[in-house]
Amino acid sequence: MRYALKIQTPDEKGLIAKVTNILFELDLNILKNDEFVEREDNIFFMRSEFIGECDIEVLHKKISAILSKEAIIEIKKMQRRKIVILCTKENHCLGDLLIRYDSGELNADILAVISNYEDLSPLVQKFNIPFICVSSEGLTREEHEEKVLEELKNYTFDYMVLAKYMRILTPKFVSAYEGKIINIHHSFLPAFIGANPYKQAHKRGVKIIGATAHFVNNELDEGPIIYQDIIKINHALTWKEMQKNGRDVEKIVLAKALNLALEERIFVYKNKTIVF
Amino acid sequence: MRYALKIQTPDEKGLIAKVTNILFELDLNILKNDEFVEREDNIFFMRSEFIGECDIEVLHKKISAILSKEAIIEIKKMQRRKIVILCTKENHCLGDLLIRYDSGELNADILAVISNYEDLSPLVQKFNIPFICVSSEGLTREEHEEKVLEELKNYTFDYMVLAKYMRILTPKFVSAYEGKIINIHHSFLPAFIGANPYKQAHKRGVKIIGATAHFVNNELDEGPIIYQDIIKINHALTWKEMQKNGRDVEKIVLAKALNLALEERIFVYKNKTIVF
Amino acid sequence: MRYALKIQTPDEKGLIAKVTNILFELDLNILKNDEFVEREDNIFFMRSEFIGECDIEVLHKKISAILSKEAIIEIKKMQRRKIVILCTKENHCLGDLLIRYDSGELNADILAVISNYEDLSPLVQKFNIPFICVSSEGLTREEHEEKVLEELKNYTFDYMVLAKYMRILTPKFVSAYEGKIINIHHSFLPAFIGANPYKQAHKRGVKIIGATAHFVNNELDEGPIIYQDIIKINHALTWKEMQKNGRDVEKIVLAKALNLALEERIFVYKNKTIVF
Amino acid sequence: MRYALKIQTPDEKGLIAKVTNILFELDLNILKNDEFVEREDNIFFMRSEFIGECDIEVLHKKISAILSKEAIIEIKKMQRRKIVILCTKENHCLGDLLIRYDSGELNADILAVISNYEDLSPLVQKFNIPFICVSSEGLTREEHEEKVLEELKNYTFDYMVLAKYMRILTPKFVSAYEGKIINIHHSFLPAFIGANPYKQAHKRGVKIIGATAHFVNNELDEGPIIYQDIIKINHALTWKEMQKNGRDVEKIVLAKALNLALEERIFVYKNKTIVF
Repeated sequence: MRYALKIQTPDEKGLIAKVTNILFELDLNILKNDEFVEREDNIFFMRSEFIGECDIEVLHKKISAILSKEAIIEIKKMQRRKIVILCTKENHCLGDLLIRYDSGELNADILAVISNYEDLSPLVQKFNIPFICVSSEGLTREEHEEKVLEELKNYTFDYMVLAKYMRILTPKFVSAYEGKIINIHHSFLPAFIGANPYKQAHKRGVKIIGATAHFVNNELDEGPIIYQDIIKINHALTWKEMQKNGRDVEKIVLAKALNLALEERIFVYKNKTIVF
Repeated sequence: MRYALKIQTPDEKGLIAKVTNILFELDLNILKNDEFVEREDNIFFMRSEFIGECDIEVLHKKISAILSKEAIIEIKKMQRRKIVILCTKENHCLGDLLIRYDSGELNADILAVISNYEDLSPLVQKFNIPFICVSSEGLTREEHEEKVLEELKNYTFDYMVLAKYMRILTPKFVSAYEGKIINIHHSFLPAFIGANPYKQAHKRGVKIIGATAHFVNNELDEGPIIYQDIIKINHALTWKEMQKNGRDVEKIVLAKALNLALEERIFVYKNKTIVF
Repeated sequence: MRYALKIQTPDEKGLIAKVTNILFELDLNILKNDEFVEREDNIFFMRSEFIGECDIEVLHKKISAILSKEAIIEIKKMQRRKIVILCTKENHCLGDLLIRYDSGELNADILAVISNYEDLSPLVQKFNIPFICVSSEGLTREEHEEKVLEELKNYTFDYMVLAKYMRILTPKFVSAYEGKIINIHHSFLPAFIGANPYKQAHKRGVKIIGATAHFVNNELDEGPIIYQDIIKINHALTWKEMQKNGRDVEKIVLAKALNLALEERIFVYKNKTIVF
Repeated sequence: MRYALKIQTPDEKGLIAKVTNILFELDLNILKNDEFVEREDNIFFMRSEFIGECDIEVLHKKISAILSKEAIIEIKKMQRRKIVILCTKENHCLGDLLIRYDSGELNADILAVISNYEDLSPLVQKFNIPFICVSSEGLTREEHEEKVLEELKNYTFDYMVLAKYMRILTPKFVSAYEGKIINIHHSFLPAFIGANPYKQAHKRGVKIIGATAHFVNNELDEGPIIYQDIIKINHALTWKEMQKNGRDVEKIVLAKALNLALEERIFVYKNKTIVF
């Protein structure tokens, strides 16, 4: 079995030695080891991917014993995860995940797809995945979210993927799934926060457009960035054409970010990510 | 001789035909023709690069005669231009231009380099180019600019290149050289406007950094964008390392933008550029 | 109605004027005009996208009358095209096209998907598109192709897309659909021609991998290149991981190339493409 | 003082623990640790960058004691290195290095520049670096190399940088400086090996061009690749324009590769590099 050990702790000399010693003593073989020291606060981050027969509790105890009280230690089996997807009307990010799911490339089960519109129902149902439409018509933001939260309670999942879910989430919603919500924003953040970034980009006359996958927090489009990419454009594109071209970046960026999360390769610290 | 004809005029049917007919009648051979219609205001932009024996005044008159009164027509010989460079202490953008100048690749004479510090004087003098230090010590922004403007009056140039000139220009200065000042900003605008974009980028935790070459107008870092590019980074870079890596993008982006200007390939319209 | 006019003819002075005059006289409005002169053989290429009421035959005649006998003139309505897709077992390129088809983004009907294996049948059938399996088991290349050609005869299509169709085509097959077959090769050609380019790339230790969409001709992976892109990699990737990462490039590159073809934006000349 | 420890050894469990333990016991603080296991031959590669007071011999002995006999161990002070540069006539790669040298960014002394032509002598002399012209006129390849080797004997250097040195080296020359010669080739290898890759690229009609920095071995353009990058191009570029555009990629790729070497971040194994 393959495991991922993630440690965040105040930096001190000998941390790699101490931790890898424990793994060695337990006859666990490290496949990949990554470390980083955040220099402003002197925080040490380490991720070890290892194989072997591992009693997670025992390992956790042993590592706790040698680290500071403030240390955050996470040990997880590297196995297929569970996700839910929220979307609105555009099919490209959702569709890309469905195709990856269909081939087995996506290392996660898609438990359900929730949308505020019916449009994507036929697509989702082709793949035998429950599609739940929670219309927001006539509802306040809070009322609508309440209903979505109701639906979400039926599922136990590792990550919620906002695959172009075009609604702003309230702090209540976000805090219910803190650190689990991955969003794709259709600009290279922090540029063009908020509504219709392609229109903003067109107006500003930029020569690149991009997409940003990030964890959602309580500030709109301000959460920790996981992955970003861009494409070059020119004056000849209308904002609709930017949008069309941008979709290819959006879907690849979202899939990449989700994959990093599924492989337990991301730490979040101070609104930034460390990605190994 | 090679010429560039640039036209900006309200769109109507048959414009390409009408204009290229005139060139044909005058026995001028088009090497490269580009057009674009801005759809919001229906403005037609066209650039023709042609060779032949051309009386610019005659051609201008003939084209004027068939276009709207609002048309802007520019006909220029494609020849070596003249530039001045302003810089502060960093040598990479300046140095890159000097090396291109030295090989003859840069199709412009560098008349002078002006800086608010002495640091780059030895480098510039190696290339036998006048270096003028206008220290800002003890001066208000206006007083300093007055002195720089004094120096600039000694030169007749096509473009002023701000090769990491780390000072904000006043409207007075900008309007004296409107449409002629090209700046390099060390971020992918409109993200990270203002001071120390790499520190801002580091704080925000972005996964890409970039650079933007733009014409300078009266809004800080808000001028028409000519060219932009980015590189991918990760969490491990300090802002100083971002800065170091970013320099390579900055210098290439600036040189590319300058080159586009020297070849008369840029139109500015409504704070955006059309680049052919 | 929107049309694309494509002209290839020996270069001479006044061609743009002559052709655009005809369009003007016929009250056709040019939306986008592109020209290029191939300097080795002095061949002029021009593509005009225009709207208006157009009698294609009349326009063809009028343009023929003013051009050289050697001129190749093509005038096509810009409308939804018809394609067939050939694939083997991998679903990413096919799936990407299906999702674009599902949203209406792909401006083409997919008449059929043909494969030498059954694997992708369920996916294709979700989208109500005929899936035809032509197994190659026990057949010579020629026998298998004969059967595929038999199936293809049932369809009239503009382009045949090889969406990771892992078989080499014979000259007979290629000549039956000359200039209509678009292939995606999983390397930045001309590097790593032939079988398993990712294994080749891994062995060579390259730091980039890529994909190339090209028209198929009788030389393996030697056809005119339409579009290419790459991603950066490092030593840590196995060839299987390169393959996994490369799939994202492959599918985007193929879709982009197909789109260029559907919009009549490609000329082929001397085993190269001119793309407007 | 900062050090780089590089280990290459048959893989076994506990290697990271064993080695980092030694560093810990010697009170050395790891700043950055990277590992990789080559799975075909099961070779473990590790690079530790650490600070502290270090007796290199003692450390070497201690690490040798716990590793296999086949282990290759290298411990070096992270300090300014010494290089020589070979070039021909083009100034962009050389000039880029000179500008980095001038600002102090390049962490190396340039001991000398050797060329088979005089062209770049004035540029090099501006920076007070010895320029040695060894003309190849009337000489066989072997005779010319003999003379270059003569000159090189006057210098003790860490790396020899071929900054567009347009001559093929003989095995004798290469073996005299094995693993020390870094070349920039003006294509994305393994495409377009040999003479005039831009002409080759133009002929093939590729949509990207690139550059490859690699260590030189006895096969032309077949040495271990350190770094590569590309830019997108289109049909409109002549091969001369490709060359002009390509220069920007060449110089950046070469500088990046040299920098990786200067920071002792490269392992070479089986004609590939592992770059940390």
